Amino acid sequence: MASNFDKLFNPDGIAIIGASRDPGKVGSVILKNLRITYHGNIFPVNLASDEIQGLKTYSKVTLIKENVDVAIISIPAEKVLQVLKDCEKKKVSFAIIISAGFGESGHSGVLLENAIKKFLNTAKIRVIGPNCLGVINTEPYYNTTFIDPNSKPFPGKTAFISQSGALLSAIVDDATLDKIGFSKIISVGNSIDMDEAKFLEVLKDDENTKAITLYLEGLRDGKSFLKSALETSKKKPIIVLKGGKSKGGAEAASSHTGALAGSDIAYELAFKKSGIISVGNIDDLFNFMRDAPGLRIKSDEVIIVTNAGGAGVIATDAVYAAGLKLAKLSANTTNELSKILPREANIHNPIDILGDATPERYKEVLEAVYSLNKPIIVIFSPQEMSLPIETAKEISEIHLQNKDLPLLPVFLGGARIAKAKRLLREINLPVYSYPHEAVDIIKGMYSYSAFSQPVYSTYNKTNVKKTKLNLKTNLFGLDAKTIFDKLAIKTAMGVKVKTEEDALKAAVKTGYPCVLKVGSNEIVHKHRIGGVIVGIKNEDELKKAFESMKAKMTDDHIKYTHFEVYKDVTPKKGGIEILLGGHLDPQFGPMIAIGIGGDYANIIEEVTFLLAPISDEDLTNLRNSKIGRLLASATKRKIVDEIISYTIKLAKLMEENPMIKDIDLNPLVVSEDDAIATDFKVYTA
Amino acid sequence: MASNFDKLFNPDGIAIIGASRDPGKVGSVILKNLRITYHGNIFPVNLASDEIQGLKTYSKVTLIKENVDVAIISIPAEKVLQVLKDCEKKKVSFAIIISAGFGESGHSGVLLENAIKKFLNTAKIRVIGPNCLGVINTEPYYNTTFIDPNSKPFPGKTAFISQSGALLSAIVDDATLDKIGFSKIISVGNSIDMDEAKFLEVLKDDENTKAITLYLEGLRDGKSFLKSALETSKKKPIIVLKGGKSKGGAEAASSHTGALAGSDIAYELAFKKSGIISVGNIDDLFNFMRDAPGLRIKSDEVIIVTNAGGAGVIATDAVYAAGLKLAKLSANTTNELSKILPREANIHNPIDILGDATPERYKEVLEAVYSLNKPIIVIFSPQEMSLPIETAKEISEIHLQNKDLPLLPVFLGGARIAKAKRLLREINLPVYSYPHEAVDIIKGMYSYSAFSQPVYSTYNKTNVKKTKLNLKTNLFGLDAKTIFDKLAIKTAMGVKVKTEEDALKAAVKTGYPCVLKVGSNEIVHKHRIGGVIVGIKNEDELKKAFESMKAKMTDDHIKYTHFEVYKDVTPKKGGIEILLGGHLDPQFGPMIAIGIGGDYANIIEEVTFLLAPISDEDLTNLRNSKIGRLLASATKRKIVDEIISYTIKLAKLMEENPMIKDIDLNPLVVSEDDAIATDFKVYTA
Repeated sequence: MASNFDKLFNPDGIAIIGASRDPGKVGSVILKNLRITYHGNIFPVNLASDEIQGLKTYSKVTLIKENVDVAIISIPAEKVLQVLKDCEKKKVSFAIIISAGFGESGHSGVLLENAIKKFLNTAKIRVIGPNCLGVINTEPYYNTTFIDPNSKPFPGKTAFISQSGALLSAIVDDATLDKIGFSKIISVGNSIDMDEAKFLEVLKDDENTKAITLYLEGLRDGKSFLKSALETSKKKPIIVLKGGKSKGGAEAASSHTGALAGSDIAYELAFKKSGIISVGNIDDLFNFMRDAPGLRIKSDEVIIVTNAGGAGVIATDAVYAAGLKLAKLSANTTNELSKILPREANIHNPIDILGDATPERYKEVLEAVYSLNKPIIVIFSPQEMSLPIETAKEISEIHLQNKDLPLLPVFLGGARIAKAKRLLREINLPVYSYPHEAVDIIKGMYSYSAFSQPVYSTYNKTNVKKTKLNLKTNLFGLDAKTIFDKLAIKTAMGVKVKTEEDALKAAVKTGYPCVLKVGSNEIVHKHRIGGVIVGIKNEDELKKAFESMKAKMTDDHIKYTHFEVYKDVTPKKGGIEILLGGHLDPQFGPMIAIGIGGDYANIIEEVTFLLAPISDEDLTNLRNSKIGRLLASATKRKIVDEIISYTIKLAKLMEENPMIKDIDLNPLVVSEDDAIATDFKVYTA
Repeated sequence: MASNFDKLFNPDGIAIIGASRDPGKVGSVILKNLRITYHGNIFPVNLASDEIQGLKTYSKVTLIKENVDVAIISIPAEKVLQVLKDCEKKKVSFAIIISAGFGESGHSGVLLENAIKKFLNTAKIRVIGPNCLGVINTEPYYNTTFIDPNSKPFPGKTAFISQSGALLSAIVDDATLDKIGFSKIISVGNSIDMDEAKFLEVLKDDENTKAITLYLEGLRDGKSFLKSALETSKKKPIIVLKGGKSKGGAEAASSHTGALAGSDIAYELAFKKSGIISVGNIDDLFNFMRDAPGLRIKSDEVIIVTNAGGAGVIATDAVYAAGLKLAKLSANTTNELSKILPREANIHNPIDILGDATPERYKEVLEAVYSLNKPIIVIFSPQEMSLPIETAKEISEIHLQNKDLPLLPVFLGGARIAKAKRLLREINLPVYSYPHEAVDIIKGMYSYSAFSQPVYSTYNKTNVKKTKLNLKTNLFGLDAKTIFDKLAIKTAMGVKVKTEEDALKAAVKTGYPCVLKVGSNEIVHKHRIGGVIVGIKNEDELKKAFESMKAKMTDDHIKYTHFEVYKDVTPKKGGIEILLGGHLDPQFGPMIAIGIGGDYANIIEEVTFLLAPISDEDLTNLRNSKIGRLLASATKRKIVDEIISYTIKLAKLMEENPMIKDIDLNPLVVSEDDAIATDFKVYTA
């Protein structure tokens, strides 16, 4: 723990500003919680009374003589800034602002929040919240929240940071019933100062914390979060439940917090790139809260040992559904198993040790496979002759002898196995109720182990001519062409024309068949308004096309600036049309898309996304993706590298020119030895 | 209940053949269970003793004077047939064969099983098992299994049929702890006589059963199962957990039971077509076991009411992830909500009634939305001011007033909400721990309500020339062409040739560019051995191609019979290559595939499957699928109907000619007004 943050988590003196006598008030509950959990000096601050819950009150924090490290503020929003200033004077290190009524609640709240932010620019005091529940530390125990004192969390090795206070109280209540312990629990609220990124940095160095779990709905500064996460995941796993994944969910999230809703794809890419384990549901989060601190999984090849064939089948399904695989057992191992097991048993993985399996048989089989050093799911299903407690004891023995061995018991059943399950929990063995739970945690913890810090050698090596642009409007077609020329991304040959005569001259250069398009930096879907005519075979057809298009544009009062004549490019046999695009994610910066393009783009919807900067691993994944394999096939591997390098070029262009919001090259017509974009747009807004 | 089956579920007299004095033996546990649960006459049959557990024993079932409806057989496999014959003599109606050692355990077991099957062809006695646990009826209570008597299941409205005995005992133990009740529990074992299909028919008419759950790993007769399921799902929902979905899981399943592993795709299509709800995991199955009997969901538009914004976000994500949607509230409803709720609340769906929501606020909001008659997920998260029990009571009131209203409370948390949850369970309200559980059950029960019995009007109307074939070998290329000619599926024009001279003559007919292929009904991948040369532009090229191919085939000792010259067909601009295929599923018959074909088929892997006979709904789904939309776009809707009708033609061909195992038409080159298969194969083995 950075010594500075000791003052937050193990403070010398706490003031409660807004302490209340009214037992229904937040200020009263917090005081009560603090008095139960905190053994230092507590100073209620309140204008109205001299004494609350037997403690002397102060009318102002500055009147307190003793040291105050933390101030908990629970007063109306509009009074908070003045009190913060008092705290600063009193040399309070941390203020936890419980009060709501800030950024989350409309314009006047935003103004109050901005005023506080401005003050904090120069102030030394650090702020948690506003609109938060506060923090809980379990060693030493201290609780600034107004969570029900009955759901007092156990000490443990998992930290939990939540953007939702209400969800935090529910999760802590449920986790406590389930005896899941926490090192620290932090409700960040609107996080105007101490945000998730800063808390990650604090928890990274906290020796009591072996895994960090988060509930996130959005981020104010995606890049600093990623930077902290990347550093932190070198030391301990980070597990995130992200709310607002669906479009509907994102809308719900943005309506209830002040957080910016970024694109879910960008979040998932960012999580993957910083070693974060992303989980889908609250119950997944629980399993990680419980078991992530102690579990390290170095292999994605799972061994299943079961006394129930059906359960082995279901576990195997779960293994493959998660993208893991079953370990193939060597002849040595199966030989050994055949000596241990009855003839009817299955000595191959999933190892079926039969319904009449004794505790000793479990032990012998586990001993035969544990040296393989792969995650083992041990399934116990209570059958007539089964001995759950004795089996649990044998499994415990194996675990205690080899604590690093990833052993994941799954005890199916209810009353008959409840005691056995408790026994396994007591020695901190992860034990699950269903096979898929064990599989999900293996998948997550393996992805953490397999994660390596991203390397950008190709990205850094790729030379892109500096292209500092000064764009003020969208650029479509030939207006945008120069940008791609600089990047050496080939675009279709075309000529700007104003008149029919010009058009006919232009077609001499491009050759027939040619394409006529309307020219404008405003019309996004030229196709839809009849602004594109393809396959023009000769002068006569071009004349007709020009006349009809010009007439149509005029009749429909369309604001065009000119026309453009292009060579008509179609994919050669075996070639394909792809799309290449860039989108500036508000959280994470340029995100590049490469996928099936042309007429069928919206139907097939096969796109690979890459977040800038693009790592070597991103490029490998792209090569192995469907689109990578399509490119390899269509180009016979000749120019696949070149096309893949376009993703880097676009990313660099967008990093350098943050006014570019979107880039579209679609289609990019790809053949064995050629890749030509025939439609191209750059958007600045 | 069909009166016949009364004798199984409410028998007059039970014999236990293989009853044992040894308390460790199955025959002893079953007797114990029976004596606890069954109040009729029990007759132990055993050669060794005169009396077991205080009951007189018989050396043979035929020596029993009184009536015996059911015989439970737990003796070595090789003695079972003789005992069955005795039972038949004694006019026993049902024999439950607990004994293992039959089809599941190798060749000698298969022989024993076949001998019993043969006997059953003419015998009147019906058999459950072998290799099963038996059956449990809860009203009146009676248990033939050797499940631990401590996990005595509660009476309820859900039936459970399981192919895995071990999983059955675990599930019953867990369900019982969770107070989930059952009407009947049936372990089918190897199901040589009474199989899942027959039990579905029995349970269809059982008034105590309102929902049927199954654990399946495979089926011996897929079609009869489907037929029973289709009939049954008219009356009550069927929920299936299918083990062996993954390739690895299917291997595990086939190694541990005698069941045939059919393709998972075929199973999912079959389930969908017969109104079966397919679940993925044991915990999903539990939720359906508990709630399916009472819950009917008529809308896929969900309303969410929550006192925790974060939980509303997570629930919304789950709704969209499941393919459901949030209901859009009318202005009337939001107006009403705005009167009830504080200003800061969200009156749009998900309705956020804020952390300080009182029980009354829950009630008022629910009253405002229940008339919309859509599923409502009511989320409660325990916060400082929350009153869980009082809130649960208000929710109960709403439910009791409108029992048909699909109200699905989700109570987040642990100790603080445990009592409230119990209170809701007691009035049979489904209450969940996490939003996704409520969403999953809404999705499943909605799919059941929305299911309509399949209609085959287009299928039946589609005239296909009777094509009774007499195939003995695979037919590839021009040998297969006549079959597709009869179906009016257009295949590329081609000519069989033996010599170079023939080839040159043939090319005059096809025109250039042409394609030369080796002819053989054995070579599956002609490409891979150099047996296909495309894009031959003129006579000279054709000569060279012919010489080099013939030399190669000769050098490599390839068994070819002739060569084939085809017109070279490539897709016109905007056209696509698709694949059209048929596969005879061992369980469910012809399964037709239509998807992206040609070079990219294996990369894009976009295929829609249809099970024969093809229903009108299948055709609608095909039209709306990616491949349907691609076809519409590529053909400008001109010949999309024709191409879609090919699926019906193939299905009918395969139904009529069960010797056809597979058909491949790939690619089928599709343009605006033409669809030509350029490679085509019919496999008979």
